[in-house]
Amino acid sequence: MSGSKPHNRRAAIVGATGFAGRELRQLLARHPSLSCTIAMSSRTPDAHATGSPLAAAESPAPGHDIEPLDTSRFGEVDGVFLCTPHGKASAVAKAAVAAGARVVDLSADFRLGTCDRYETTYGTPHPEPDLLAEAVYGLTEHARSQVSQARLVANPGCYPTSILLPLLPLLAQGLVASDSPIIADSKSGVSGAGKSPSDTTHYANVHENCRAYGIGSHRHAPEIELHAGAAATDSAGNSRIVFTPHLLPAFRGILTTMYVQPATADVTAATMRSCLHERYADEAFVRVLPAATHKTDSPQLRCVQGSNRCHIAVHDSGPLIVLTSAIDNLVKGAAGQAVQNMNCMLGLPESEGLT
Amino acid sequence: MSGSKPHNRRAAIVGATGFAGRELRQLLARHPSLSCTIAMSSRTPDAHATGSPLAAAESPAPGHDIEPLDTSRFGEVDGVFLCTPHGKASAVAKAAVAAGARVVDLSADFRLGTCDRYETTYGTPHPEPDLLAEAVYGLTEHARSQVSQARLVANPGCYPTSILLPLLPLLAQGLVASDSPIIADSKSGVSGAGKSPSDTTHYANVHENCRAYGIGSHRHAPEIELHAGAAATDSAGNSRIVFTPHLLPAFRGILTTMYVQPATADVTAATMRSCLHERYADEAFVRVLPAATHKTDSPQLRCVQGSNRCHIAVHDSGPLIVLTSAIDNLVKGAAGQAVQNMNCMLGLPESEGLT
Amino acid sequence: MSGSKPHNRRAAIVGATGFAGRELRQLLARHPSLSCTIAMSSRTPDAHATGSPLAAAESPAPGHDIEPLDTSRFGEVDGVFLCTPHGKASAVAKAAVAAGARVVDLSADFRLGTCDRYETTYGTPHPEPDLLAEAVYGLTEHARSQVSQARLVANPGCYPTSILLPLLPLLAQGLVASDSPIIADSKSGVSGAGKSPSDTTHYANVHENCRAYGIGSHRHAPEIELHAGAAATDSAGNSRIVFTPHLLPAFRGILTTMYVQPATADVTAATMRSCLHERYADEAFVRVLPAATHKTDSPQLRCVQGSNRCHIAVHDSGPLIVLTSAIDNLVKGAAGQAVQNMNCMLGLPESEGLT
Amino acid sequence: MSGSKPHNRRAAIVGATGFAGRELRQLLARHPSLSCTIAMSSRTPDAHATGSPLAAAESPAPGHDIEPLDTSRFGEVDGVFLCTPHGKASAVAKAAVAAGARVVDLSADFRLGTCDRYETTYGTPHPEPDLLAEAVYGLTEHARSQVSQARLVANPGCYPTSILLPLLPLLAQGLVASDSPIIADSKSGVSGAGKSPSDTTHYANVHENCRAYGIGSHRHAPEIELHAGAAATDSAGNSRIVFTPHLLPAFRGILTTMYVQPATADVTAATMRSCLHERYADEAFVRVLPAATHKTDSPQLRCVQGSNRCHIAVHDSGPLIVLTSAIDNLVKGAAGQAVQNMNCMLGLPESEGLT
Repeated sequence: MSGSKPHNRRAAIVGATGFAGRELRQLLARHPSLSCTIAMSSRTPDAHATGSPLAAAESPAPGHDIEPLDTSRFGEVDGVFLCTPHGKASAVAKAAVAAGARVVDLSADFRLGTCDRYETTYGTPHPEPDLLAEAVYGLTEHARSQVSQARLVANPGCYPTSILLPLLPLLAQGLVASDSPIIADSKSGVSGAGKSPSDTTHYANVHENCRAYGIGSHRHAPEIELHAGAAATDSAGNSRIVFTPHLLPAFRGILTTMYVQPATADVTAATMRSCLHERYADEAFVRVLPAATHKTDSPQLRCVQGSNRCHIAVHDSGPLIVLTSAIDNLVKGAAGQAVQNMNCMLGLPESEGLT
Repeated sequence: MSGSKPHNRRAAIVGATGFAGRELRQLLARHPSLSCTIAMSSRTPDAHATGSPLAAAESPAPGHDIEPLDTSRFGEVDGVFLCTPHGKASAVAKAAVAAGARVVDLSADFRLGTCDRYETTYGTPHPEPDLLAEAVYGLTEHARSQVSQARLVANPGCYPTSILLPLLPLLAQGLVASDSPIIADSKSGVSGAGKSPSDTTHYANVHENCRAYGIGSHRHAPEIELHAGAAATDSAGNSRIVFTPHLLPAFRGILTTMYVQPATADVTAATMRSCLHERYADEAFVRVLPAATHKTDSPQLRCVQGSNRCHIAVHDSGPLIVLTSAIDNLVKGAAGQAVQNMNCMLGLPESEGLT
Repeated sequence: MSGSKPHNRRAAIVGATGFAGRELRQLLARHPSLSCTIAMSSRTPDAHATGSPLAAAESPAPGHDIEPLDTSRFGEVDGVFLCTPHGKASAVAKAAVAAGARVVDLSADFRLGTCDRYETTYGTPHPEPDLLAEAVYGLTEHARSQVSQARLVANPGCYPTSILLPLLPLLAQGLVASDSPIIADSKSGVSGAGKSPSDTTHYANVHENCRAYGIGSHRHAPEIELHAGAAATDSAGNSRIVFTPHLLPAFRGILTTMYVQPATADVTAATMRSCLHERYADEAFVRVLPAATHKTDSPQLRCVQGSNRCHIAVHDSGPLIVLTSAIDNLVKGAAGQAVQNMNCMLGLPESEGLT
Repeated sequence: MSGSKPHNRRAAIVGATGFAGRELRQLLARHPSLSCTIAMSSRTPDAHATGSPLAAAESPAPGHDIEPLDTSRFGEVDGVFLCTPHGKASAVAKAAVAAGARVVDLSADFRLGTCDRYETTYGTPHPEPDLLAEAVYGLTEHARSQVSQARLVANPGCYPTSILLPLLPLLAQGLVASDSPIIADSKSGVSGAGKSPSDTTHYANVHENCRAYGIGSHRHAPEIELHAGAAATDSAGNSRIVFTPHLLPAFRGILTTMYVQPATADVTAATMRSCLHERYADEAFVRVLPAATHKTDSPQLRCVQGSNRCHIAVHDSGPLIVLTSAIDNLVKGAAGQAVQNMNCMLGLPESEGLT
């Protein structure tokens, strides 16, 4: 690629033309130690030749010619990023692992832990049960050591990332009341719906609009439930997670507003904020905002767009505690966290190329 | 005004240059029986002369010259709409009532029922306690008969309208569990922040952004609590309402997502949907959507912008029921509901000029 | 339809589900004398059943069930609006005319006057030469008497409408220098690209973006040249029109900025403004703005969106005169002008249903 | 600042809180050899303390505390960037030059070459005639050697940059007809209107809107005329430049569409494209697009936002040649070009920190 940089690690991107793939290419173009040396896509070359605006926008650097998918080339690289649609990643992941590459899969194929949960959610058996068993769920701040040893990392979904980062430390410390519902009301930019034109992504349906979708049935809900752990289940074994995604008239970013009941009367927003401050004090990408002194001091998309950061705030509100978090769904919710994981897997500094 | 219409009732608008005042003028221009004959504003004429883009955009019709505030003219009209800032309406309302006009106040001055609650919320004594005592809270579908007898109607706030319409019938029927939190996560277009330029309304801070504000402290919360009634309080007398407003990168519309716990295990979304269907079957402006057969069949801003409608849907989601509602904050949440109330007060058909 | 209105004329809309068709249905719903009694679409019913957001947004009134195309029903109506894609209108127009209905075609099929010009532009022979010969180009303000007698009106394109309204009176009065280029730099909202999802209409490619397209080759250019008349050609017979369309990050509206050379040194912006003022003094939908006293007093999309108006301003700028015009491409540039034409054809007041 | 980078040059930014100042801080944060060590603003500290959303969004790095303006500190730095409002830069520039720092002024104070032209345009005498005389107009690609020797560089305006880059080589080669008008129709994001809230920047007036402004009178017109040189004047000494700026419903980016008459009949778009290709072949930041094979292959905001690039395309269109260019007004049109100039002045590689 750009010979002037001292790149010493090489990566392939499969699915390099979608939004996540493009974001990855941009991140790796600035990464000091990891280069994208192969950019593959199963889209036909003709589709690219016909010149969508994005093609021009991408201004591909030399070497970023998009090649057809060729699993025989994984031996040429140290790491492989999979940005293929859900259901398509398993076979490619198997080939990449077999070739000795470290693999970060940005699809949902390896996020659900067990074959049963996968089949319940997607209606078909998991194609690679052995790989599923060894895959590590890569919420980096909570799985750093496993990630560093893994051959295959399942990169978390964008919504689960925005929800689990504020939630996990509070559950671990027992600050959330048992058996109470845990509500996550998430608002996402439309890039989460992907690059393919559809009614959902038509400008007419996005601009100046907002709506909820997938209420009670979004496929990220099982992922959140699984990785929130035992504390996310009530005493009867039922999930306590209530997750409602919404579409914003915006391109990138997720704002999540969570509502939790404190475990005891003396647990306040200050208690939870302290817990999160302590937990994330040494993390480069998670920032817990101080108690708001001004009405605008709360997480917002503007502050995290284009970055790998997650901003979190905690507020008292009547009988509940309100947690708000903001991430860029294409960075911390996809390509950025993928690079963070790959850095761990390849022994590079975890934040390299991300600041 | 437009002499060609058989207008037989006349109205004055005080605060005719703000967003709500402008919306009112547009609604009355199409109203078959009610005309705006006086449009007043306390803004200086110079401010208009210097020609903001909105001035041109408004293309004022003949007769819509904006006049300075002159309370001596209220005897010339049948009804007065007050679109003044909060705190400024009381004195004007008093003059209008004294002149024999019916008054709909779109500010918050008469919404909070008692002087105590007003003073707690705003930090100053209410300037017109007697008027406050007689004012009717004009959520029209729930106060029709009182509104029709009232001299002064407090037009509900935009957020409370979007929250109370789905909530009141469920509370009245005992379908929501006692003592459980009632969560309203509202997303609003930026027109709610008014026409005056500010950091909040600067395009740079709105476009492609989203954030919560006023968490646990928004002034609409006491209004919601009061008008949700006794059922909105737990057995210890504490409010159960948890209200979080958010700013959308959009101009008009409010989407509210509510989370409530069903009273018993056999209360489901279907139960609540039936309750709402029955309650609103004869209402022109409230539409309860059928059980979603498609993921996009839920309330959205697009479907209500520019109309006086409120769309409501009900969904099961784990341990809770999710209610979503959509209104146009400038119409059903302000000017449209004001016309609906004025129609009632003047003995006109309630939906005249609004369909 | 709505039996409460004294509708005495009936209309069919073919292509009722696209943006122009939907706009027409909304206009006719408020029209006092003309109702949409048949709404047809060649899209399959299934496509509607699967529930795009627009389907819900349209809130079809009773009777607006979308029916499949059935040309045998044109005898039931007084007028037919064709909103079919270019190339599909001719056959339907023939059937409608044969059934005795007045027809306004919103496609480009009958705009180009002669078979030769059509074939040069579209590469195929015109399918209905006789109809083409009798069709009237319906720029209403300039063809009122012919429109009123016509069986078939070709509704002008959106760009040509925004260009010809300012230009025609100036050419007719000889105020523009012969042989000089006439430049039209047009900026359009993306609704002009239609309702079908595509790369062009994907939110990712529209929001915060702007680009020119079809430079020197847009199909509206021959339409502009033809209807600007002999004065649009230089002494060598070559077109003087230079037309560049651009896509705005907006949904509706066209702003056109034109650059013309005055015929003589004493022709100024004031001369041209007077000419336009006089020509359009009695027109309901064309407003010539006064000489700007403030920098914001020029046509803008905000002032014409949702209306059938065209705003025009004239400015001196160095050696040239700059004309700016603004219309709503879906109203004056499509559905509104179509209703205006149909009103003429059916003997109704021209502006009925449009104010 | 960030001690981990081998910064060896230090810069001060005056006016560090506006849009250009913030962009500069972000660029310098990634610059390998030049750091912002002093960020000054004449805004009161209180204004920052009250916490606008932008304050949070900026996430100031340690050391980026905003200090009040203190001209006595210019001796501590190698370079000074002035982002003050027009009219305020002269005195600060004088102090900075006196302190031995190289100065890039992003305001208009030193762009107009002579005191006469300045006074004609701004209505007041230039406060620092000697400095004005020595200031170099820093359109870097056309003034590289003078910039490298300069003590004070006037950074070009955003509109002039987008116009002069395509135009200058064509004028120099005599490819544009003498005495013919040169038309620049520019479309800009609203960030050009600055960070202070105003009617112009209110979301209500920007979103879904578009309008021209300052037709025939924008202050960038004299700057364009001056720096286009003698070829921009006709034989009678009158300016040939016709410049019309427009406001887009977008935040950042300028798209300029230019219309020029070819000098002779055999000068085509291909001729001009070759001229520009050759002129800019070795330039890192100017890209001349090939002849369009697809309708979308023309400059667009999307492709240059966030970069220091200028994209240029050339098209035939009837009797004229159409040039389109796209830049990011805050980068190549402001902060990026300023860094490019400062790099030249300090002997650093010209594109350092900009790729």
